[in-house]
Amino acid sequence: MINYDAFFSRAAGHMKASAIRKMGGVAAQGRDIVSFAPGFPAPDTFPWQDFQEIAHELLSGRDGSVLQYGPTRGYRPLVDAIAGVMAGRGAPTTPDRLLITTGSQQGLDLVARVLLDPHDVILVELPTYTGAISAFRNVQADMVGVRQDTDGIDLAELDEIYHRIQREGRRARLLYLVPNFQNPTGLLIGVSKRAALLEWAERRDVLLVEDDPYRDLYFEDSATEADVRPIRADDRSGRVVYLSSFSKTLAPGYRVAWIDAPPAVTAKLEIAKQAADLCTGELDQRIIYEACRRGILDRQAPMLRGYYKHKRDVMVAALGREFGGDVTWPDPRGGFFLWATLPPLVNADAMIARAVEHGVVYVSGDAFFVNGSGRLFIRLSFSAPTPDRIEEGVRRLGAAVREELAAHRSGLPAPAVR
Amino acid sequence: MINYDAFFSRAAGHMKASAIRKMGGVAAQGRDIVSFAPGFPAPDTFPWQDFQEIAHELLSGRDGSVLQYGPTRGYRPLVDAIAGVMAGRGAPTTPDRLLITTGSQQGLDLVARVLLDPHDVILVELPTYTGAISAFRNVQADMVGVRQDTDGIDLAELDEIYHRIQREGRRARLLYLVPNFQNPTGLLIGVSKRAALLEWAERRDVLLVEDDPYRDLYFEDSATEADVRPIRADDRSGRVVYLSSFSKTLAPGYRVAWIDAPPAVTAKLEIAKQAADLCTGELDQRIIYEACRRGILDRQAPMLRGYYKHKRDVMVAALGREFGGDVTWPDPRGGFFLWATLPPLVNADAMIARAVEHGVVYVSGDAFFVNGSGRLFIRLSFSAPTPDRIEEGVRRLGAAVREELAAHRSGLPAPAVR
Repeated sequence: MINYDAFFSRAAGHMKASAIRKMGGVAAQGRDIVSFAPGFPAPDTFPWQDFQEIAHELLSGRDGSVLQYGPTRGYRPLVDAIAGVMAGRGAPTTPDRLLITTGSQQGLDLVARVLLDPHDVILVELPTYTGAISAFRNVQADMVGVRQDTDGIDLAELDEIYHRIQREGRRARLLYLVPNFQNPTGLLIGVSKRAALLEWAERRDVLLVEDDPYRDLYFEDSATEADVRPIRADDRSGRVVYLSSFSKTLAPGYRVAWIDAPPAVTAKLEIAKQAADLCTGELDQRIIYEACRRGILDRQAPMLRGYYKHKRDVMVAALGREFGGDVTWPDPRGGFFLWATLPPLVNADAMIARAVEHGVVYVSGDAFFVNGSGRLFIRLSFSAPTPDRIEEGVRRLGAAVREELAAHRSGLPAPAVR
Repeated sequence: MINYDAFFSRAAGHMKASAIRKMGGVAAQGRDIVSFAPGFPAPDTFPWQDFQEIAHELLSGRDGSVLQYGPTRGYRPLVDAIAGVMAGRGAPTTPDRLLITTGSQQGLDLVARVLLDPHDVILVELPTYTGAISAFRNVQADMVGVRQDTDGIDLAELDEIYHRIQREGRRARLLYLVPNFQNPTGLLIGVSKRAALLEWAERRDVLLVEDDPYRDLYFEDSATEADVRPIRADDRSGRVVYLSSFSKTLAPGYRVAWIDAPPAVTAKLEIAKQAADLCTGELDQRIIYEACRRGILDRQAPMLRGYYKHKRDVMVAALGREFGGDVTWPDPRGGFFLWATLPPLVNADAMIARAVEHGVVYVSGDAFFVNGSGRLFIRLSFSAPTPDRIEEGVRRLGAAVREELAAHRSGLPAPAVR
């Protein structure tokens, strides 16, 4: 019997399974479970017929390169189309700044590998996206969390932490941010705070990693295009490494996303990508390109804003009915997530087993905090379930919370996850 | 002006652009160039009509999960189909050993990250696959090369190097091998040597990383199924981490490959993949699964063996006509590559500029040697060009070699790459 532990790298020793992916496994067990866990877009919004027609044309065999290895940078017409998307976001760019990635998760991984050594410090929001935590952990970086206000990261604490790290003889060279409808809190960084962050990065010689998958999904009752203007759009000096994706607006099954960064950084990221997977799937890129060229992306975005807003409304109303004031949350102004604070006695992580018994899953707040807090919070995705299922899931969640509170009062132990 | 070098990680400092990918750029400049550089399969062999029908059915919208995020392990029916492929290779396996990867390049990258720390030693063949070199270099591993005979790696030298490393106070825990139609040499490791390698790995407590993309492409005039039996097939104790791919038999534009490894290793690789790209493209996996289920893969393999054998014949005949005995090579018994030794005065790397002028490109041997040798060798891929183009390319190569030799005799400088 071989002891494989003796063969694993130090990086492997630090790796942890994703809490979201684990919850995906629970939902896949075939029971009647309402899953608020993964941030899945709703497949009934995908433009199936357009995709079918595009794939039919691409797979005619007239152009052999559709199924060939492609350049690491990406399919050039798609790179140009992405430059158009960036211009539409107020951030005109050039092809030498762009790299197509196999989903934004690969973008985060490449950024981590190219910009972080073991024990380097990266500043992150408290809480922040678990996939970014995984990517930074896998290069053995030290993540230091900064508190958020309702308009995003606390600038005073950010600077204080920056100086504290410096006093410890180390340097924080990167700050990771999700300014639009943050995963998990759903918060927006305010417009003036965005400008202040850029100015701060300049002053402290820090690079900003701006992760922006939800930008197109602002809800028009409470956010405008001006509110979601990327920090990158006002970056004059090359401080921002910007990531975005087609996963939330076209479909995630095609793994197509991009990085926009200063050319010297993009060149390094490209070399890292050569060794990571040679190139992003060519058929996927061609389909996404055609969806851009034929105006399908432009048609999808406004439709999705209305569609996900409606689901947000349904969830907010159901939570209000179910919990009154016992559970609180900031109303999401876009994106996929509602970030709820549970009543004080409830531990979100410990309650998962009970929630599964009642037929509902969520992601416990712990997964998003690099400082180990988070037990009072749960992330609820309203994106994938139907309105009926959202209401049913919230009812089940209510039952689980009430039972958990009763158990606390009576001192009964929590059930184990089955 | 920001100096980004100050922000790059040590790993990024070690990264080098792939020589093969660079040659791809030369070929893409739109001039009339015969490219023997990349190991591209021939698109006219792809089963386009089958793919078109499969994509049409999958994109009907009946099953929303076709374009959704999928499990990191892979689409379960495809995992099961791969177990069937493995059984067909004499290596029955179980789903807990299997992980679907975004091409085999990702497999190599995950293996490197999970099994190698900076300055760890990995033993490799001299020469070896550049993509593996990149993956191992990116985790800052030290690669030590072992000479090959015509039946593969030299066992005596392997053991000698193993001991020398141990005397230096370090340990070689991994040996990377491409036993079937190696990239770049086209060589096969002999059947008895495979058994000896497994026994050696057991004795020295080393894991074997067996990279096997070309297994199905044996040429029936000079190799049989028995010759390509994976080392993994006789691994009783869990010494082998096995990688293979659908890129060479179905199409590389779908980035779908797999790793078969001891369950404890696969579990770690899965966690590493979560952070690397969450999951392999779902549509790609579904198409590949359908191609397995409908017998398309089984139909392709024998056809491809005949198809690539013919191209090998054309290249071998053309080289014989063009160079007589001045250029030598081992006849490829399968796969995509012919590994040629140039006349003594010719430097393969320096000659590239002249070759491009004549309208032909190849990959210089240097790219495949971790010890810096290789200037006498070129790798010629016969897989993608048509038979006519292979003949034309070899004529152009002949002209370049003759000119290079004449320039050497007359002392003229080589031209610069344009």
